[in-house]
Amino acid sequence: MTAIACAALLSVLCTGTVLPTFAIKYTYETKYVDVPVDHFSFASNLTFPLRYLVNATHWRKHEGKPIFFYTGNEGDIEMFAQNTGFVWEIAPEFRALIVFAEHRYYGRSLPFGNKSYSEPKYLGFLTSEQALADYVLLISHLQRDQDHPSPVIAFGGSYGGMLAAYFRMKYPHVVAGAIAASAPIFQFSGLTPCEAFYRIVTSDYNSTSTECAASIRRSWTEINNITSSDAGKSWLSTTWKLCKPLKTSNDVKELKSWLSDVYTNLAMINYPYPTNFLAPVPANPISVMCTHLPNSSLTGKLLLKSIFKAITIYFNYTGSTRCLNIETEASTNLGDLGWDFQACTEMVMPMCSDGHNDMFEMQMWNFAKYSDTCYKKWKVRPDEKRALRMYGGKDISTATNIVFSNGLLDPWSSGGVLYNISSSTAAVIIPEGAHHLDLRESNPADPFSVRTARKFHRKFIRRWLHNHQLSEPTLGVGL
Amino acid sequence: MTAIACAALLSVLCTGTVLPTFAIKYTYETKYVDVPVDHFSFASNLTFPLRYLVNATHWRKHEGKPIFFYTGNEGDIEMFAQNTGFVWEIAPEFRALIVFAEHRYYGRSLPFGNKSYSEPKYLGFLTSEQALADYVLLISHLQRDQDHPSPVIAFGGSYGGMLAAYFRMKYPHVVAGAIAASAPIFQFSGLTPCEAFYRIVTSDYNSTSTECAASIRRSWTEINNITSSDAGKSWLSTTWKLCKPLKTSNDVKELKSWLSDVYTNLAMINYPYPTNFLAPVPANPISVMCTHLPNSSLTGKLLLKSIFKAITIYFNYTGSTRCLNIETEASTNLGDLGWDFQACTEMVMPMCSDGHNDMFEMQMWNFAKYSDTCYKKWKVRPDEKRALRMYGGKDISTATNIVFSNGLLDPWSSGGVLYNISSSTAAVIIPEGAHHLDLRESNPADPFSVRTARKFHRKFIRRWLHNHQLSEPTLGVGL
Repeated sequence: MTAIACAALLSVLCTGTVLPTFAIKYTYETKYVDVPVDHFSFASNLTFPLRYLVNATHWRKHEGKPIFFYTGNEGDIEMFAQNTGFVWEIAPEFRALIVFAEHRYYGRSLPFGNKSYSEPKYLGFLTSEQALADYVLLISHLQRDQDHPSPVIAFGGSYGGMLAAYFRMKYPHVVAGAIAASAPIFQFSGLTPCEAFYRIVTSDYNSTSTECAASIRRSWTEINNITSSDAGKSWLSTTWKLCKPLKTSNDVKELKSWLSDVYTNLAMINYPYPTNFLAPVPANPISVMCTHLPNSSLTGKLLLKSIFKAITIYFNYTGSTRCLNIETEASTNLGDLGWDFQACTEMVMPMCSDGHNDMFEMQMWNFAKYSDTCYKKWKVRPDEKRALRMYGGKDISTATNIVFSNGLLDPWSSGGVLYNISSSTAAVIIPEGAHHLDLRESNPADPFSVRTARKFHRKFIRRWLHNHQLSEPTLGVGL
Repeated sequence: MTAIACAALLSVLCTGTVLPTFAIKYTYETKYVDVPVDHFSFASNLTFPLRYLVNATHWRKHEGKPIFFYTGNEGDIEMFAQNTGFVWEIAPEFRALIVFAEHRYYGRSLPFGNKSYSEPKYLGFLTSEQALADYVLLISHLQRDQDHPSPVIAFGGSYGGMLAAYFRMKYPHVVAGAIAASAPIFQFSGLTPCEAFYRIVTSDYNSTSTECAASIRRSWTEINNITSSDAGKSWLSTTWKLCKPLKTSNDVKELKSWLSDVYTNLAMINYPYPTNFLAPVPANPISVMCTHLPNSSLTGKLLLKSIFKAITIYFNYTGSTRCLNIETEASTNLGDLGWDFQACTEMVMPMCSDGHNDMFEMQMWNFAKYSDTCYKKWKVRPDEKRALRMYGGKDISTATNIVFSNGLLDPWSSGGVLYNISSSTAAVIIPEGAHHLDLRESNPADPFSVRTARKFHRKFIRRWLHNHQLSEPTLGVGL
């Protein structure tokens, strides 16, 4: 996977790291609900069990208290449950049911078991529309014995945030409001310049240390130079402790792709306290990493040794990794595979870099090539305009009851909604926030802006629930 | 098909008449656009040509003038084009493009050709969601070389009106507003009492002549009595000039079902001038029919002879029909077949009659039986709650820019939206109107209320177009 292809993914699991283990802090029951493989046809009546996690500790079900519903995205839902502390923290005050729904084709929600990823006839039902329809059905299942169904608030981060927003847009009768954190719904063709994403990544490094960003920018040439000989490949493989030594130019390309992903991921998880979301990393990981790159005048092997020290904080912060493996993603991490397919069908998010205004190698956005790669890999071709047709692109003026929050450290804010759409669909900016920091549990190191954002979320949720109560369909006319 | 099953259909072609011929008044080009068989999966990449009719005579394409888009419903789109004069009449004043899009699986838009109706694996893609997605794609095709795409106003009557409303609800970025005429979006389970529909039919007859309604109510018993003997069956077959003489009790059941449909259809097309929509009928056909039923004290053969005279105005107003054929619908009219499948999957609209508050035989709404009949016929089972999950039932408070118009003579107004939803989603009542009279061309015999309704439509369309212009997505924030 090239750097571009991978960064074009919204996958939080995009690098070649093994699936992170996560601390189990929040507890829940694991349940399954049968859903149709295809919600939009009657051509077959196949169903499969969709996993969801549920905690009813605080729910006042018969008092009409709400359901807090996380619209699962591209990964094991348990990981999202453990990394979305905000929902757990506010549930008691709202007496809410907590539900984390797994996205089809991820985690344990595989429609065709082991065959799910084998060919388009099985994998083809991996779409956002089908996932939303799963959630509609799950919610009707949760409300099945309620005379007055509990209102639902959707929560999601990243692609999950896009789903939360789309959920409210497409099914406003199901979802009273949505907190869409770091949801890059404007990252599609023609809406956002393709270079915006990597410029934000670069800015994160630059603002930490211009020496750091400059060192990284220079490193690509040094890698290219040194790996132009077999001896150089060998030296780099040994010095960087690669599990699989570099043999071909393609190996080098993959290494660079992996590196780009590491820099990008660190920008996404540049949280002010140690986390274990994508990988175990220290607080403010970019700052820590950049301490190893204080001098951009270094060249050759000296620079590359520094780069290795720098990236160690991402791939081996715990010190337990024996060698650097850049190849694990496609084989062990189903999440990546699934998102790769989604990026090859409906989630086409153009990315590019110029090596000048950003710290990456120059890479053009080439849709034809992208499409060919997709076809080779999945036997499908991406539909560049599909997401615009389905969800409206920037034309979302009729959306109601959505909060779009974005941290400005987060490269995905390039495709985020950064302005208010209406009085009920608002943008929240978190200048010091990385990727959906606001959905994480509160922490003493949290910047003021994220505390304020969470207060804003709570205020909006309260308002939506209040308005929902006033507009009970049984009263006849809504609004 | 039982009376209930047929009346449960929104099909305007529900009776056993042959497909009506219609006068060709409006002209257009016939075109096709390739659309995917399944918009919501990538499991296959099959496509098929969807037919649409287009007239660009008045369109000022490069001045951003609108597209008037009829969301085709269950039948040959040419028939709807010829019976929707309102759109043709107002297009010049708006400089609009006129498009009539055919609904998949009807007319000439058969995804799998002759096999389309053969089994669920072919027929299963006949759903409203797929049809709407067809329309989205067609519109993007129509706008393909426009820098500033023309705004789209959707029009539809009956099921087409439901589609027009759903289109705006689900794809507000595609459709600036919708005129949804006689759209019974509240006709689903739990939203409307099942007896409402036949009570309105009855009321149409009662208000014309109580003798007439009473005669019809009495006739069922007389038919049952006389057909209890073979001689009686023979007498009725001869007297009513049935193409196929009555042999079994099931034949009698089907005759009664056909009769119910005739009474129902006449209520739908009870227009103030002669029409040829479902069948050639005179102006105010219920009045004309009821002149043959002036005396409800008639019994036995005398009553049945009168009934025959009465129904002649429906099945043989032109005098060219040799015999009364109650069986043609399933074999010659694909429109009926398709709607029957839709009613057996997502469009479950409960109907019942009690023979007391209405003029029909008692017939309970029995979902289990209905489901079994569907399974026997189509190998699918209806999903009673599906339409509610997908489209929200009565919870449509967030809908914007829709006019729901209903004629109170129209039995389908039982499931119509008769109250304003918001300032931009309004109800228009046409007390003297039958089924989507407002969408028909203007006529000197039109009641004042329908003239007013059409003015209202025009006013709303003008407002939507004006607001659309103000909220061009290129300006950044909508609203």
